[in-house]
Amino acid sequence: MRGLRIGMAQINTIVGDFAGNAQKILKTIAEARPLGIDLLTFPELAICGYPPEDLLLKPQFIDENLRSLDKIVERSSGISIVVGFVDTRSDIYNAAAMIHDGKIVGIYHKIYLPNYGVFDENRYFQAGNECPVYTIAGIGVGVNICEDIWYEAGPTTTQAYSGAEVIVNISASPYHSGKRNFRERMLSTRASDNVAIVAHNNLVGGQDELVFDGNSMILDEKGRLLARGKQFEEDLIVADLDIEAVFRARLHDPRWRKEALLEEQRWHTTKIVVSEEPHTTSKPSLPQRQIQVSDVPGDIYDALVLGTQDYVNKNGFEKVLIGLSGGIDSGLVASIAVDALGSSNVVGVAMPSRYSSPGSISDAELLAHNLSIKLMTIPIEKAFQAYLEMLAAPFKGIKPNVAEENIQARIRGNILMALSNKFGWLVLATGNKSEMATGYTTLYGDMAGGFAVIKDVSKTTVYKLARYRNSVAGSELIPSTIINKAPSAELRPEQQDIDTLPPYDLLDPILTAYVEEDKSVEQIIAMGIDEKAVRRAARLVDTSEYKRRQAPPGIKITPRAFGRDRRLPITNQFKESAET
Amino acid sequence: MRGLRIGMAQINTIVGDFAGNAQKILKTIAEARPLGIDLLTFPELAICGYPPEDLLLKPQFIDENLRSLDKIVERSSGISIVVGFVDTRSDIYNAAAMIHDGKIVGIYHKIYLPNYGVFDENRYFQAGNECPVYTIAGIGVGVNICEDIWYEAGPTTTQAYSGAEVIVNISASPYHSGKRNFRERMLSTRASDNVAIVAHNNLVGGQDELVFDGNSMILDEKGRLLARGKQFEEDLIVADLDIEAVFRARLHDPRWRKEALLEEQRWHTTKIVVSEEPHTTSKPSLPQRQIQVSDVPGDIYDALVLGTQDYVNKNGFEKVLIGLSGGIDSGLVASIAVDALGSSNVVGVAMPSRYSSPGSISDAELLAHNLSIKLMTIPIEKAFQAYLEMLAAPFKGIKPNVAEENIQARIRGNILMALSNKFGWLVLATGNKSEMATGYTTLYGDMAGGFAVIKDVSKTTVYKLARYRNSVAGSELIPSTIINKAPSAELRPEQQDIDTLPPYDLLDPILTAYVEEDKSVEQIIAMGIDEKAVRRAARLVDTSEYKRRQAPPGIKITPRAFGRDRRLPITNQFKESAET
Repeated sequence: MRGLRIGMAQINTIVGDFAGNAQKILKTIAEARPLGIDLLTFPELAICGYPPEDLLLKPQFIDENLRSLDKIVERSSGISIVVGFVDTRSDIYNAAAMIHDGKIVGIYHKIYLPNYGVFDENRYFQAGNECPVYTIAGIGVGVNICEDIWYEAGPTTTQAYSGAEVIVNISASPYHSGKRNFRERMLSTRASDNVAIVAHNNLVGGQDELVFDGNSMILDEKGRLLARGKQFEEDLIVADLDIEAVFRARLHDPRWRKEALLEEQRWHTTKIVVSEEPHTTSKPSLPQRQIQVSDVPGDIYDALVLGTQDYVNKNGFEKVLIGLSGGIDSGLVASIAVDALGSSNVVGVAMPSRYSSPGSISDAELLAHNLSIKLMTIPIEKAFQAYLEMLAAPFKGIKPNVAEENIQARIRGNILMALSNKFGWLVLATGNKSEMATGYTTLYGDMAGGFAVIKDVSKTTVYKLARYRNSVAGSELIPSTIINKAPSAELRPEQQDIDTLPPYDLLDPILTAYVEEDKSVEQIIAMGIDEKAVRRAARLVDTSEYKRRQAPPGIKITPRAFGRDRRLPITNQFKESAET
Repeated sequence: MRGLRIGMAQINTIVGDFAGNAQKILKTIAEARPLGIDLLTFPELAICGYPPEDLLLKPQFIDENLRSLDKIVERSSGISIVVGFVDTRSDIYNAAAMIHDGKIVGIYHKIYLPNYGVFDENRYFQAGNECPVYTIAGIGVGVNICEDIWYEAGPTTTQAYSGAEVIVNISASPYHSGKRNFRERMLSTRASDNVAIVAHNNLVGGQDELVFDGNSMILDEKGRLLARGKQFEEDLIVADLDIEAVFRARLHDPRWRKEALLEEQRWHTTKIVVSEEPHTTSKPSLPQRQIQVSDVPGDIYDALVLGTQDYVNKNGFEKVLIGLSGGIDSGLVASIAVDALGSSNVVGVAMPSRYSSPGSISDAELLAHNLSIKLMTIPIEKAFQAYLEMLAAPFKGIKPNVAEENIQARIRGNILMALSNKFGWLVLATGNKSEMATGYTTLYGDMAGGFAVIKDVSKTTVYKLARYRNSVAGSELIPSTIINKAPSAELRPEQQDIDTLPPYDLLDPILTAYVEEDKSVEQIIAMGIDEKAVRRAARLVDTSEYKRRQAPPGIKITPRAFGRDRRLPITNQFKESAET
């Protein structure tokens, strides 16, 4: 029987860490040999990490990537390897090397370069225009990269119609909620349409605002899931591919006609014979495994944990510091941080003011107790009083307003940063997406921090995640008093969020439509949502761009996050929210 | 004699201000008619402003742009107009409408879409593939857009070889120091190579981090400058083009052979006849004018003034607030602000601390006096003392370090923001590029502000600009005591910048090579610069990315500014600075 044992290494690389990434790759190669793996694959740009952004403009970065590739090639005796790297043949390419037994036998250049959303690949790469098909142990293997497989009649089809029975797609596909199912349906369609086995090797790990979720998959020629990688964890997925089944399916598939095949050759194809002889060595048997994947909201929670863990650790921090207000946002961030880093690496600071309710302080204390984290308490009254005195002359005769409110938030920001500077702890900001969208947040105040964990999480989702975490714990890890209280910034007497914003269950659907779906104000009103709330929300979003521009990075969990994903000018007179 | 009177409207548009931009365009049309202008041109995307960034993802933005274009068309009787807009024929295009006498007679789609540096045009636009040539008053006119003319054998050549005697290039080419001369040489070459008159209509004005410098130019078929627009100002450049001269030059040019012409048709061409009859109406005679353009450092200074003026005014502010330390950075920013907005719209705040030298306070006072701006003085000791007391317990037994220094900077940031919140004044941050590069600046402290005027200006250039401004004034507008003192942050006793950084005359060339030219550490050392200083500077640049990510926007004046122009990951283990 014609078969191939594939191993997909779903590894967590670090951008620019050539030594560390190479070590991880070499270690996996060593693990693969005793498992009898014929073809071992690694994610897109595994050599240098993804996305390297403007590091690609540094020639020395590209050179080091090539030297690193050489090291892998040297250690590839007796195995075939697909690994992503930056190629420099006459231009710069996002490339996949096919390595066999100590030699590079072929290089594929990514054809479809994503240049939307968070992606800027046209900024760096030239597009490829060749679709080689490799013969490995007598089996046709096509290799392509990430975006390439998202297109119908793309490189996958050219390769399949040129003899590829297996399509290896090495990928760095970032997470957003719902994407795994979307990706799985697409890969299934691609496999069955092309009557080929599709092996999709995704990256895993956090890189600045992105989390790569892993979830690598192998789908058979009928589009059925053969094997699945872990979600948000490193993994080595090993599977035996039944190539006879592909042969039989093509024999019986009416679409599989010579004429069609020739018509679909959109790119130049070459055949590269790596090894013709079928592999006959007996292989150790593979253990059965069942991979659990979580869905909303658990997948969002897990993404936030991994994104936080990797941002903190990859940037060389051990401990984090969180301002605990007694509210749900900081409560959720603290629980994520504890799950990411362990209780001993999370420090909470309560910074009560004259406007803090007694409940806020006791709630922060209870939370810290439940999470077993250290809690410091630093009342801000002294500094607040000092500012009011220093500003008494210029502010004389003017009623207190947002200026005095923001002073308090900025004192807290200053205390967090002072502790960070003194002890080397990274400050996690606790603002959510509803606040970031509407600007209901203080620049340099509660926005202060190195990383904004729930920046892309709407307030209504914050509630869901808190309840989810408690249900997993089977206890009130995040106290119910925190979950049930009315949201308030507590920066003036009796303040509540609904004094300024529409209620969150009304606001959040507006924000999703306006920010993530580019719906117009008129379209959102036509959805049956209160006109006044829609206009107000849109106006707040439009006029808060300047704040977001100075926000810390945070983890993307929706189809459109603030940050690289949404690039609006600050200077912008396009005001949709106005009455027409 | 075959001739054409062209008018190039170098206008200052606002992104998204459809009503305002249309009004400006219509006003110019009304001015053009009595001047006998046959062909009136406007900059790239003049209808919607440039660059609109992700506003282009909003269908309602594109629709309003089309409605605005219709208004222009309605008012175009008796004149030919070229204007930039967003076209939506089957896809989204960066387009130029050729309008004549109440009708759109042709549309050109930009072929070369810049997707490097500050540009992301592949994110939004489909590339065009047609090069129409219009016949206006019997004269061949080719229209193309910005980047299109930067390519040898690009659309300009196809159009010239297809009968265009005049090439109109509508443009939004952003300023950096030295670019005007570079652009002029390129346009001159393009004109003489194609034996065509080139009329380059550039945008003018500030838009977030970009300043468009105007400097529109007309070059004759021998590449000689015929007319020039103002620099950093709106202008209407009117010139009579001698088409007979083009005809004669082509007759005698050995390169102008039929075979060559046919070979160079890289894009599909069509001929669109707008009007065959030569214009015979007598036209008013044109006044002679001499346009003065300034060179380094005056052009940089003027760019900063326009960039500041437009950021402040286009965002609806009147007044700005600047923290005056008595140092040269804040002194320069204050003088730029006064030149941009007038003395009455600039407020200075001196915020002395226990470490401020007496000279700093008197220098700030003298500066405010010289610039005729209001100066407030708010000592920060009270708040500093309050923070030290609040943090006494956690900081107990630990020596003062950067934590205490940063507290002072952040108190100042907080005071500036409080005044901003109270009075609605925009805070101008005063950090320079040398500080931004090395991270010698406090996040949320001296980095606080809505706009960072000299963010892209190196410290050595700051000195040049201060001396330049004084030489223009013919007096010590910026006091010489400020210019001559040793740079210091004054955040601890006897502190000087050179305690932490290499001297600026050593540091700045390293930063230019490393940041702007992507030279490797080894290459910079090989330039003969002290190895220790190079490694130290590179390490500081690499480890400060997280600060820059939260910096306010500032004006680009070099070939590579921080911001959109340079997109590095924060999580990045590529450490060039380490000893190998």
